[in-house]
Amino acid sequence: MIQDNTTLDPADDRSADWLDQVAWNEQGLVPAITQAYDTHRVLTLAWMNRESLAATLESGFATYWSRSRAKLWRKGESSGNLQRIREVRLDCDNDALLLIVEQIGGVACHTGRESCFFQVYDNGRWVTRDPVLVDPSEMYGLHE
Amino acid sequence: MIQDNTTLDPADDRSADWLDQVAWNEQGLVPAITQAYDTHRVLTLAWMNRESLAATLESGFATYWSRSRAKLWRKGESSGNLQRIREVRLDCDNDALLLIVEQIGGVACHTGRESCFFQVYDNGRWVTRDPVLVDPSEMYGLHE
Repeated sequence: MIQDNTTLDPADDRSADWLDQVAWNEQGLVPAITQAYDTHRVLTLAWMNRESLAATLESGFATYWSRSRAKLWRKGESSGNLQRIREVRLDCDNDALLLIVEQIGGVACHTGRESCFFQVYDNGRWVTRDPVLVDPSEMYGLHE
Repeated sequence: MIQDNTTLDPADDRSADWLDQVAWNEQGLVPAITQAYDTHRVLTLAWMNRESLAATLESGFATYWSRSRAKLWRKGESSGNLQRIREVRLDCDNDALLLIVEQIGGVACHTGRESCFFQVYDNGRWVTRDPVLVDPSEMYGLHE
């Protein structure tokens, strides 16, 4: 299911057709799901604008648009836990992206867990289920 | 990683704390990623409001909010390709959901493919990579 032979060689021109084909929302964004190629865990849901998708494919590392900080954000730029791109997929409505990545360090969440989706619904409550793999204070020289 | 022993026994009260803990956006929605428990494929990205999340846990089947039709939408209500809930997860920011499901019929996409994420970036183009498993004309008595 995961293609390892995808050539990550984006068009030089950021006005390219493949960027135009994405159905950016009224804020110029689309949600981007990120999944680990090896464990198949869904790691994160983040947002991309045109520039961040182009930067992702140019650099080979997942680069999102931080809505709270209103700037490009290369995931792992503080923690070192970069996400190396294996594949980028677009859904049938062209309004959501799926990144298949190699999660450097095996930890995507700022809490030190593999996945940000660690709260599980159980009988009317959200229960934390997944182990902390890395002490967050060891992950960040600066807060990411 | 996937818990099969989760008790799907939602609180009777839709004003429950667990619903209040979700960080609904300004439209009262959150994105909901759906992943197959067996193949681990990411199937869909859809949206939920408070009512659809409560209905999902009450019924045991994925129920989204259709933004285009402005109504609750039980996935598979036309095609029969329901999504039986195994687990519902919330991310660390409380603003995105992950549903782990049994995809009835093995097909989540209206095109007859397993996943809606069938367009793969390849050298400046989006290329269709995944096979059509079911003829869409056979899937729908009515258009879903």
